[in-house]
Amino acid sequence: MGRHNHFTISASWASSRIEAGTLTMVEYVSSLLGRYEAWDQQVQAWATIEPGSIIQQAREIDQIPSEQRGCLHGFVIGVKDAIHTKDLPTRHGSPIYATDGPLYDASCVTLLRMHGALIMGKTTTTEFTATFEGPGTKNPHDLNRTPGGSSSGSAAAVADLQVPIALCTQTVGSTIRPASYTGIYTFKPTWNTVSPEGQKVTSLTLDTFTVISRSVEDLQQLTDGLALCDVKPPLPLSEMLKDSRFAMVKTSQWPNAGPATIEAMDRATRILRQAGAHVTKLTLPVEFNDVFHLQNEVLGNEIGTALHYEFKTYGHLMSGDLSQILSIVDTGSKQAYLDALNTIAVLRPRFDKIASSFTAVVTPNAVDVAPVGTHTGSSDFNAMWTALHVPVIHIPGFQGEDGLPVGLSIVTASFKDRHLLQVAKLIGQLFAREGRSMRATCTPVMPADVTESRR
Amino acid sequence: MGRHNHFTISASWASSRIEAGTLTMVEYVSSLLGRYEAWDQQVQAWATIEPGSIIQQAREIDQIPSEQRGCLHGFVIGVKDAIHTKDLPTRHGSPIYATDGPLYDASCVTLLRMHGALIMGKTTTTEFTATFEGPGTKNPHDLNRTPGGSSSGSAAAVADLQVPIALCTQTVGSTIRPASYTGIYTFKPTWNTVSPEGQKVTSLTLDTFTVISRSVEDLQQLTDGLALCDVKPPLPLSEMLKDSRFAMVKTSQWPNAGPATIEAMDRATRILRQAGAHVTKLTLPVEFNDVFHLQNEVLGNEIGTALHYEFKTYGHLMSGDLSQILSIVDTGSKQAYLDALNTIAVLRPRFDKIASSFTAVVTPNAVDVAPVGTHTGSSDFNAMWTALHVPVIHIPGFQGEDGLPVGLSIVTASFKDRHLLQVAKLIGQLFAREGRSMRATCTPVMPADVTESRR
Repeated sequence: MGRHNHFTISASWASSRIEAGTLTMVEYVSSLLGRYEAWDQQVQAWATIEPGSIIQQAREIDQIPSEQRGCLHGFVIGVKDAIHTKDLPTRHGSPIYATDGPLYDASCVTLLRMHGALIMGKTTTTEFTATFEGPGTKNPHDLNRTPGGSSSGSAAAVADLQVPIALCTQTVGSTIRPASYTGIYTFKPTWNTVSPEGQKVTSLTLDTFTVISRSVEDLQQLTDGLALCDVKPPLPLSEMLKDSRFAMVKTSQWPNAGPATIEAMDRATRILRQAGAHVTKLTLPVEFNDVFHLQNEVLGNEIGTALHYEFKTYGHLMSGDLSQILSIVDTGSKQAYLDALNTIAVLRPRFDKIASSFTAVVTPNAVDVAPVGTHTGSSDFNAMWTALHVPVIHIPGFQGEDGLPVGLSIVTASFKDRHLLQVAKLIGQLFAREGRSMRATCTPVMPADVTESRR
Repeated sequence: MGRHNHFTISASWASSRIEAGTLTMVEYVSSLLGRYEAWDQQVQAWATIEPGSIIQQAREIDQIPSEQRGCLHGFVIGVKDAIHTKDLPTRHGSPIYATDGPLYDASCVTLLRMHGALIMGKTTTTEFTATFEGPGTKNPHDLNRTPGGSSSGSAAAVADLQVPIALCTQTVGSTIRPASYTGIYTFKPTWNTVSPEGQKVTSLTLDTFTVISRSVEDLQQLTDGLALCDVKPPLPLSEMLKDSRFAMVKTSQWPNAGPATIEAMDRATRILRQAGAHVTKLTLPVEFNDVFHLQNEVLGNEIGTALHYEFKTYGHLMSGDLSQILSIVDTGSKQAYLDALNTIAVLRPRFDKIASSFTAVVTPNAVDVAPVGTHTGSSDFNAMWTALHVPVIHIPGFQGEDGLPVGLSIVTASFKDRHLLQVAKLIGQLFAREGRSMRATCTPVMPADVTESRR
């Protein structure tokens, strides 16, 4: 593989090559920066990136003696511009923090640095992760389309091979939807398994740490670094194949599903059955239909608390969309908020119980492929799973209109994160092989000898 | 009143005198600093205080034209050393953050500064607000006794008249208990009515913003600045007196109550009845007895997530107590955590419903008066109310052994914060008048003409 293709490999593969001495951090990072320099003027995935500092950090990392290297040595990571970092500004996609924002590392960033990861830069976000107007970032598969949002830059940078992994946040569908639109993996662990300290708060009970990557192995290795712990240890992959049971859940939003999502659900059912799994349609109890509306009530109230200072002091620097959301909050009903919190709280263990009968639930994560334009698309299919606090992994592998990517989410009960990653590995391979795996990017097609996996 | 007694007045009184032009910020702050200089070598309430900078800020505040002054102009506020500030270090009572901690304003601090408040300094906390070994701070009523914790410095500084108000956090009983031990008011609003962003996380679902003061009016004026909003507007004080109903709730912890607490509950019952209120004993449904244990399960798990980085990187700089708590977490059960979260979530609306039949619930907040020594005392009486997310106000006014202060908490349903402040005003006056209001301090007794109220 030529020097210029290092950017195509996964973080875990890069890490093992660096460990083996066949790649240096400086070489690897130079390759990523080369990719960035070649394509980011079009994609516009980054809010802040300082190539000189990255090369310097890579040089320092290369000097670390092998016995002192952490479990994420060699990992290069983008960070959504809603997560604080001590060495790069955090601007939240807003002119309010254009200068003079706080400089400190969020909890997730301290953990990843502790294990040896290098932070490549800050990836764009929509305004305070809350609006549907994109930050100017393009979908690498079609520059006329949105990469989704609010984690627009994280999805675009990882899909465009500019960085292998990016940290994100999700309050409704901020990460799952962009991952679907750009054809990559994303992992939303159980709520509060990774401390949200240092992520700008949008909605305290909904905001969830998430991560985007092109490889399940990367997600698993990160999960080790973040010390995620399941209710009980997951079965090994071989055991999981036996008697596996999947529930196809279309949710109350299904009437909005477009052709790509409808076809993906059909194909997934066939693929899983062909692989020997037991696949059933599942309709959740009718109370779950309300979660979509209830989470909206929670978000509407909590964003008012979270952004009260910004709204009162800098309301004139907010978009009309955000101002409108925050004006409504000021007159919103605390009783409706409480009722929503309490109703969702009761549904969480009910869903956990339902999910425990299945290897995983399979469900849509976007209406269809990425829409044309700058609106970041609908998060309606994501809202329920975020509110339920359960782990979700987006699995790419299908295609819609113009060969554009679409994927499906797998979901399980709370604190079965490592279990779900195992399932993702299994299903990810099946979907990639059988789901008309897409290859279209706006960038040159990868050489045939480049794969995403170590094996 | 002599110049040197400005330190005795409440923040709202200081504020109105400054507004009226009969007091300047420089005079007021000089008086507070005089008190600090005279007594804090003994009390040791402050982690960081920079008198020169405070005088300079006071000078600048005095220059603000009256039409540009905020609603908290004249308020001088201490901030617990677990809440981040941009101009003073935040050390969390731990050598881990002795240097190089993040410098930024927590959400609550930005709001108070926005309204014109001056931050006087950082008040001591126990180690990461989590341990029971005091930070060296003494109880102003008896220097051989604890002021309680974790908000040790906030309680001691306000009780010792060094500052009128201090911001705190409460995860179990971190503020209510110190307020009881030091004979001052504290207000724990409904969970997440004030954004916790910038408070160091100990337990994401339990941590609550709180505030300590010697005056209900101060708390009400702060509440205006923090834009708290009730389910419905509270009745005026005069309406509230009619047909008022109080429930005396002893909780499952009652067998541990000492003589001062037992007497306070008895006297409160008599005082309220004499005032014409309907007072009943109330035993909560038996499921509420479990909350004490359940919140411990939640805290035990969440602190592991919150302090994971500190524990893994700087475990050797932690006390034995904290290390032990965090070691247990590493092997703790996620299922027990989930069950605890889900069970508490169901009890929250149940309590709200019960509380809605009463003007307020009256309940103990400490086993007895402040114990001798450096252990910060038991938080057992506070745990349930924090876990239920409901507003609580500690009302001082009673005395125990050696004339030491003890008070009682009043509690109501979620988002009845302003209602509860009205009730506090009513009951606070009754308890102060009838409850053998205490006057003992280690410092010279206040002149007779100094009162805590504007009237």
